[in-house]
Amino acid sequence: MALAAARRVPACILLRAGARLQGAALGLAEQAAGGRDGARRFGSQRVLVEPDASAGVAVMRFNNPPVNTLSLEFLTELVISLEKLENDKSFRGLIITSDRPGVFSAGLDLREMCGRSPAHYAEYWKAVQELWLRLYQSSLVLVAAINGACPAGGCLMALTSDHRILADNPKYSIGLNETLLGIVAPFWFKDTLVNTIGHRAAERALQLGLLFPPAQALQVGIVDQVVPEERVQSVALSAIAQWMAIPDHARQLTKAMMRKATASRLITHRDEDVQNFVSFISRDSIQKSLQLYLERLKQKKG
Amino acid sequence: MALAAARRVPACILLRAGARLQGAALGLAEQAAGGRDGARRFGSQRVLVEPDASAGVAVMRFNNPPVNTLSLEFLTELVISLEKLENDKSFRGLIITSDRPGVFSAGLDLREMCGRSPAHYAEYWKAVQELWLRLYQSSLVLVAAINGACPAGGCLMALTSDHRILADNPKYSIGLNETLLGIVAPFWFKDTLVNTIGHRAAERALQLGLLFPPAQALQVGIVDQVVPEERVQSVALSAIAQWMAIPDHARQLTKAMMRKATASRLITHRDEDVQNFVSFISRDSIQKSLQLYLERLKQKKG
Amino acid sequence: MALAAARRVPACILLRAGARLQGAALGLAEQAAGGRDGARRFGSQRVLVEPDASAGVAVMRFNNPPVNTLSLEFLTELVISLEKLENDKSFRGLIITSDRPGVFSAGLDLREMCGRSPAHYAEYWKAVQELWLRLYQSSLVLVAAINGACPAGGCLMALTSDHRILADNPKYSIGLNETLLGIVAPFWFKDTLVNTIGHRAAERALQLGLLFPPAQALQVGIVDQVVPEERVQSVALSAIAQWMAIPDHARQLTKAMMRKATASRLITHRDEDVQNFVSFISRDSIQKSLQLYLERLKQKKG
Repeated sequence: MALAAARRVPACILLRAGARLQGAALGLAEQAAGGRDGARRFGSQRVLVEPDASAGVAVMRFNNPPVNTLSLEFLTELVISLEKLENDKSFRGLIITSDRPGVFSAGLDLREMCGRSPAHYAEYWKAVQELWLRLYQSSLVLVAAINGACPAGGCLMALTSDHRILADNPKYSIGLNETLLGIVAPFWFKDTLVNTIGHRAAERALQLGLLFPPAQALQVGIVDQVVPEERVQSVALSAIAQWMAIPDHARQLTKAMMRKATASRLITHRDEDVQNFVSFISRDSIQKSLQLYLERLKQKKG
Repeated sequence: MALAAARRVPACILLRAGARLQGAALGLAEQAAGGRDGARRFGSQRVLVEPDASAGVAVMRFNNPPVNTLSLEFLTELVISLEKLENDKSFRGLIITSDRPGVFSAGLDLREMCGRSPAHYAEYWKAVQELWLRLYQSSLVLVAAINGACPAGGCLMALTSDHRILADNPKYSIGLNETLLGIVAPFWFKDTLVNTIGHRAAERALQLGLLFPPAQALQVGIVDQVVPEERVQSVALSAIAQWMAIPDHARQLTKAMMRKATASRLITHRDEDVQNFVSFISRDSIQKSLQLYLERLKQKKG
Repeated sequence: MALAAARRVPACILLRAGARLQGAALGLAEQAAGGRDGARRFGSQRVLVEPDASAGVAVMRFNNPPVNTLSLEFLTELVISLEKLENDKSFRGLIITSDRPGVFSAGLDLREMCGRSPAHYAEYWKAVQELWLRLYQSSLVLVAAINGACPAGGCLMALTSDHRILADNPKYSIGLNETLLGIVAPFWFKDTLVNTIGHRAAERALQLGLLFPPAQALQVGIVDQVVPEERVQSVALSAIAQWMAIPDHARQLTKAMMRKATASRLITHRDEDVQNFVSFISRDSIQKSLQLYLERLKQKKG
């Protein structure tokens, strides 16, 4: 079976194992950050939404310890926050970034895919689809301030943005590394990547499960800018200002025109895609492999 | 409304406002150029067609003062000249260039889109479609010698060529900058750009309404060569010679194979595309914005 | 007629004319290579298949003197060998390379297209389709070690690989140069090239029949690596090891996802494509031109 045959340590798992230590060490920083609460417009514990000084811009900070794994709960809160922002006419632009040090998002949550019922798998996958559809079709200007590692589902979120800025830290690599885990990125992950870096580069990156460090990420075009870590947020604000200088209506129609075919492909095959996921993840061999991973992970933590 | 929200001065409008002065200052040059008339094979006052020294090559010079705006009359003459050239077996290659200093073509004519009847809008849009279909599906080798600013509809004409040479002058930028005017490039403009620079670069360029100066234009691939201004014509002749060295029949079939899907998309949806344009441009809000622009333009001229 | 209008000496023909001398001079080398026979697992005189030291990798050496032209017999042996390898679970990766010095493969065999019956043309074209479908949809990791000139059908084989390494020799150019011969690459050759180097670069390369020397080949992305000639095989082994480190099942599903649409286009239109080829190649004008070429070729040899 594929998962069992994996020869590389999956980056996603490593991130989650290592991040508990990071999380613990950063308790102080988290408390200090609590002072921002007063500025929250809406959002939740896991999704901090703050209006920025610049008019019309909201900053959404991912805060699902330890590594912003996309649990069903986190996904749900993300979608609700995005919906609110779309409907709030005071916002025309959104910066997505992480409140967790060292990681933008570790991607999908393997615990949601292991030892649960088919109904749970279906519910989880629908939530992943929903997040992608919301982000990819957002009428807001969307800028990703990628201030940490950005594998798999984290990369998918970044790819839905209009502009991507990656912090220049060799530990912060970005890519769809699903094959390293023995799993396969669904066709709409693939479409999003092909639209960004082209067919050949996507074919190579997806098959090899490549995680691009900053310089390579810029070269292949999976991000638009690489800047010093401390400048990610300020550069994101400059970038979003450039995009917001364009008349909204024309920009939104143009964005929809560029993305419609890709979004429609999932919308048309949404149920089928859920069925595929449920039947793939329910296989004994896949479940066995996922269990092994999660047990190994617990041992590392203990 | 979108147009009203525009925060940048649209480049297209500026070109037309500024060009009257240029045009006036160049009366002498125009008279001197009159000596070329004897060489005209066909064409009109606005579309000068000259056979070049090189066998089988025609040079088409745009001459619709002040800035080669694509008026209905100019569009009609362009299409007639192209049709004649396609049917004249003595020509296998065509260089398109401008006879107006400083501008290749300022693009679509806003006066054709403002204060007219729906029937006029429909007629105008059909003419724009017709020009694109003629150029994009031309069986001739088509080389664009871009010797001036090349926004919007001017860029579209250049994009239909087999090879694009841009004069190395920082004022000569090229791009589909429709969003800056609060309008949206139709899907076939978009398709032509995506085919040239890829999906991601097109998404960014179209949303931001980017006009690329020469060095950037070369880097993104919207032109193939950037050469000193005085060498544009001679380089165009060298380039077209390379293309004409290929057996015509094989080259034409290959070109058709590459472009068929894109051309068919418009041909199939041609009436629908006209309806979309007419209904969009007829909106009160759009008409109001266009009127404001045109009035401001007249004041600048006065 | 197109073929008659060709102004350049077609590279493919030159290769075949020149290679007889090379082949004669290399009789010694061929005998010496006979020592490899003991290692052959399967394959034929024309298709040498050897398991490599690295577990799970087979090396397929093209050996159809003088220049690995894709005769019907050679095509058939290639397809049979590929089928055997696909079904042999001891192999997960395949390196394709040439046993003929100076040429990877000269491409399609004009003698199969000239002076034969329509039934023969149809049989030949089906074999070309079959080879492409086998290679493009292979579940094996496929690496091309391009150790010689690689025009037309030779390039097509290379393009089906997951990774392409070209020997750094200015004589070893690669490309789909069909237009130079007055013929047209079929749509699936075109699709394969577009998937590799993008729409614009493919449009230019196909129309001009470009053969890229190593540095240009790397720049346009038609190959992934250019290395010194003596290192092609060792680099190919390193490259295939990187790809084989990925869990097979996930990699295969990902590869299939990337290539399915392109392969399906031919599968759906396979008979129609055969009919097109037979009717094109049967034209008097095409047959006349091919005969002229082949006669000129014989004179050069004599």
